[in-house]
Amino acid sequence: MGELIPLSIPNFEGNEQKYVNDAVAQGWVSTGGAYITRLEEMLADYLHVEDVAACQSGTSALHMALVRCGIGPGDMVIVPTLTFIAAVNPVKYQFATPVFMDCDDSLCMDPNKLEAFCAEECHLDNKGVLRHNDTNVAVKAMVVVHVFGNMCDMEAIMDIAERYHIKVIEDATEALGSHYIEGKYAGRFAGTIGDYGAYSFNGNKIITTGGGGAVVARERGETAHLRYLSTQAKDNQLYYVHNEVGFNYRMTNVQAAIGVAQMECLQRFIQRKQNNFNYYREALLEFLDIKLIDSRENTSSNCWFYGLELPIEKMNCELKDIIDELQKKYGVQTRPIWGLIHEQVPYREDLSYKIERAKYYSKRVLNIPCSTHISEKEMNCVIDSVRTILEQH
Amino acid sequence: MGELIPLSIPNFEGNEQKYVNDAVAQGWVSTGGAYITRLEEMLADYLHVEDVAACQSGTSALHMALVRCGIGPGDMVIVPTLTFIAAVNPVKYQFATPVFMDCDDSLCMDPNKLEAFCAEECHLDNKGVLRHNDTNVAVKAMVVVHVFGNMCDMEAIMDIAERYHIKVIEDATEALGSHYIEGKYAGRFAGTIGDYGAYSFNGNKIITTGGGGAVVARERGETAHLRYLSTQAKDNQLYYVHNEVGFNYRMTNVQAAIGVAQMECLQRFIQRKQNNFNYYREALLEFLDIKLIDSRENTSSNCWFYGLELPIEKMNCELKDIIDELQKKYGVQTRPIWGLIHEQVPYREDLSYKIERAKYYSKRVLNIPCSTHISEKEMNCVIDSVRTILEQH
Repeated sequence: MGELIPLSIPNFEGNEQKYVNDAVAQGWVSTGGAYITRLEEMLADYLHVEDVAACQSGTSALHMALVRCGIGPGDMVIVPTLTFIAAVNPVKYQFATPVFMDCDDSLCMDPNKLEAFCAEECHLDNKGVLRHNDTNVAVKAMVVVHVFGNMCDMEAIMDIAERYHIKVIEDATEALGSHYIEGKYAGRFAGTIGDYGAYSFNGNKIITTGGGGAVVARERGETAHLRYLSTQAKDNQLYYVHNEVGFNYRMTNVQAAIGVAQMECLQRFIQRKQNNFNYYREALLEFLDIKLIDSRENTSSNCWFYGLELPIEKMNCELKDIIDELQKKYGVQTRPIWGLIHEQVPYREDLSYKIERAKYYSKRVLNIPCSTHISEKEMNCVIDSVRTILEQH
Repeated sequence: MGELIPLSIPNFEGNEQKYVNDAVAQGWVSTGGAYITRLEEMLADYLHVEDVAACQSGTSALHMALVRCGIGPGDMVIVPTLTFIAAVNPVKYQFATPVFMDCDDSLCMDPNKLEAFCAEECHLDNKGVLRHNDTNVAVKAMVVVHVFGNMCDMEAIMDIAERYHIKVIEDATEALGSHYIEGKYAGRFAGTIGDYGAYSFNGNKIITTGGGGAVVARERGETAHLRYLSTQAKDNQLYYVHNEVGFNYRMTNVQAAIGVAQMECLQRFIQRKQNNFNYYREALLEFLDIKLIDSRENTSSNCWFYGLELPIEKMNCELKDIIDELQKKYGVQTRPIWGLIHEQVPYREDLSYKIERAKYYSKRVLNIPCSTHISEKEMNCVIDSVRTILEQH
């Protein structure tokens, strides 16, 4: 066994050190500074939107979006069960109630079940508010996650949202750069179609600022309001006038300095992720029983993470045995897809709606190494290790 | 008019660039990495506590402390009205109700009024829970702020907290290094006396990590629990088991790299802040009518910010006129003390208790330049400018 092949590590082959040194040398390290503005401008240009607000994390972006959707105690928010828990925790921060939805074969929210839930389990009241039949609770918003960079079926989802008056918060934390290439939303990027979009620049993401995120809103002026909320809602910088309850969610200039350097590399990183995805896929085509989860038709995925679907019921082991063996015997770091959120302790009492495919995929999807600077030799090692283990089990 | 004399800017005369470069070169930029652990150890050593959890901000530290005090919708939390709003907003994050308390002549919470509020406006129910008489709401916690580095009367406050069964969250965001030198708490640092203590390393603080903070708890093992909450409550790193609703509040390694370099300078910074405070004070003694707000007896303040008390009722102008004139005519950047929180839009409907001294001080306290690397020449310029303006008005 040679060196460890990590699952996903940051790639700092650009101007990261230079820009960070500049920020520190200038003394602009906190929530003011030119790199923050520059990063926001680069993101806005890239995403073809008017304005982007840089913040502390994808979680904080989602939290502020929920606040702006008016979500509070007693409201209901539709969320996926198969995703990282950060997409759902902000619902609890607002003391609202999540209702968990199943995924389809893209791992993203199943629009058919979403439609069925709205039509059969809810009704529009005489003020046009969607209400859950059993509890009469208002269903005001949904969080949809573009899992691993693969886009949700936004055409179906936006249509449902419009008909049932539900705000759409796109969790594009994994999907910076993913976009539609055909159809109604051709050219539109993940995060820019719904009412709000959240991005993450955490250490494992396609670009990183250490920790960090960004938020966009479709409505004119709304992104500026999110920025205001992220800086403790200061209506007057000097005289401490605050007309709302704000947060300490603003990105710092040091984080943004890293982010500007990373944005300079984004297109190259996406290209490599896509190339490596194709390399893996072609090599894996030799095995009839396993496949990489592919991106939705009419979309271009940033291919952030690679989800390998294993034929687990034909094997005499579980996913975790394979993960252990890959790590210990071959030095290949992998991870399972997430545990389903509706089965986690803090969410067990909450509603869920016909969860089936998520259970299926949670047992069999393995994430394999996908750093942007992974070598062909390393990918071959991953493929050979997986092949050997599958042949043994 | 020469160069601007800023109110308070960071001082990076140490190893900041070296350590940040090291963190980026190693690729450890996110919420894992050796600098985070090192910063936590340095803080724990310095504060004489077992454990410190580094987090995103003082705000996030306070928020997690409130969560661990069990504060939720309907609970009441005692808070000061004369402080930065970040000390109070987390109460609203938990959908709890603040009750605003007055300050004494130290600008910190007045323990006499605190006692009177508990004794006259509340009662202990038969389970020993303090309840507000009029509303029967439980008063479970208080947030006390060590304003400008000057310590609250912790002897009186802890005594009241014990008798009325109220958890004490010390907001030591401005007071890293302030401590008791005599009495019951001799040697104990701000933030380590109450049940929880919150620190901030925002850009204007005595040491900075860009944005950042830390939290400590008195109870054994509790700080580790706060750290767990700050990392999305992962009970298993690989398998996505979460037994609580966590937050994305962990400090990053890049922030911590700056923090380690700053901690190496902390003692020197405090010494300079104290020396400069004394320099200002002696120069100002010549004016009978103005004074610097001094630190509490038996304590050593870190002298983070200098609060100049102006004889505003004898002057034919308001605080803001003086601030404008100092800035425009003399290039001296100053700021007013905060607007009272109970008068801000989001808090006007909440309870407040006999606010008097806070109103008095909010009209007359001016913060003057206090960076650790301010020169004697600059301080003289500040003093001369203030003197000239006072003589004119």
